Amino acid sequence: MSDTETRRRGPYAKTAERRRQIVEEAYRLFATRGYHGSSLRDVAAAAGMSQSNLLHHFGSKEELLLAVLERRDEFGGTREPGAEPLGTPVPGATSDGFDEHIVAQARLNESIPGLIALYSVLSAESTTVDHPGRDYFLRRYDRLRTGYEGEFEALRRQGRLRQGVDPAIAAASVIALWEGIQLQWLYTPDIIDAGAVLRAYLDLVIAETPKGVRRS
Amino acid sequence: MSDTETRRRGPYAKTAERRRQIVEEAYRLFATRGYHGSSLRDVAAAAGMSQSNLLHHFGSKEELLLAVLERRDEFGGTREPGAEPLGTPVPGATSDGFDEHIVAQARLNESIPGLIALYSVLSAESTTVDHPGRDYFLRRYDRLRTGYEGEFEALRRQGRLRQGVDPAIAAASVIALWEGIQLQWLYTPDIIDAGAVLRAYLDLVIAETPKGVRRS
Repeated sequence: MSDTETRRRGPYAKTAERRRQIVEEAYRLFATRGYHGSSLRDVAAAAGMSQSNLLHHFGSKEELLLAVLERRDEFGGTREPGAEPLGTPVPGATSDGFDEHIVAQARLNESIPGLIALYSVLSAESTTVDHPGRDYFLRRYDRLRTGYEGEFEALRRQGRLRQGVDPAIAAASVIALWEGIQLQWLYTPDIIDAGAVLRAYLDLVIAETPKGVRRS
Repeated sequence: MSDTETRRRGPYAKTAERRRQIVEEAYRLFATRGYHGSSLRDVAAAAGMSQSNLLHHFGSKEELLLAVLERRDEFGGTREPGAEPLGTPVPGATSDGFDEHIVAQARLNESIPGLIALYSVLSAESTTVDHPGRDYFLRRYDRLRTGYEGEFEALRRQGRLRQGVDPAIAAASVIALWEGIQLQWLYTPDIIDAGAVLRAYLDLVIAETPKGVRRS
């Protein structure tokens, strides 16, 4: 490590830690009170700093929202396993285990109700045309639908998609079902099993593995 | 009409009209900014009255929220057809046309994006334990799941539920899928067809009518 790097690391690490704290508190407030219902002043107070100090790290409330939404990318998801509520389609996956991956991810999400609540509130709020989160969710749904459609297409080519199932409709459906059942689960975690609901849907659209063919 | 009734009707009608205006504006604000993001002052200003005048009609913001949620019951849904985003299970229905009813309701909902947005935002916000809308949504999901489970049970007794389909899981799934796909539709109404998605799911769980049996 060079001297320059050593000198830089101190303040950089401190700044990163302050940013992390701010995003953490914003995440918690947006999840319970929504974006419009939380002020920068609230976030600053929760993070134990002045509003002008907060604005030194994030220039605007919109910028802070995007940081919250990109939280998982920024921090590598190390703090919370499965921090992507819908599971990211694995690029170039062969669809082997695609369904198991979804169910496993849904079960992991049970450990992060706060993040599920955040996504539920923000994805609903952001439908409004002038909401700063709108583009993020437009891109997110588009990326997820495209990814899942590719997975269902791959299953179809392998003869494992049930007759008559449309890969595009199945892709939009699995995302919708997942988000919808997670919302019911937030209300009544004791009676809703998101993993079982997703498994039941996938069993309806994915055909049995042909006899004599081992599923890898 | 007695004299007493005549005398009462004037002020009563005026009060009802003021209440209707307030609920209308609250509904519009909650749908775009959420419950926490809208103040009583905002609602009063939008309805063209002072906050103290508004409080004469609704004693608290919580009371106003419940009025917004009960809006359809209060006004009989005459202004907006299909104002129940999920369609109310018809009590005592024989399940004939249950699936067609759901798809038709989903298509009707395309005419009321504002109400769909309101339900999306409030149902997500209200998951928080201390949110005044929480009980409403708890009861609503419970009522809908019970109603739909009864419908799927009736289909099962008629031999019209596909082998292995669990009525309770199908009930929770159709609600989740419906709410989730409406959210995607709010973002991209040009590429999401909620009716087609629900139809596809119902075709997966409801078996073909047995040959020679006419579906009434």
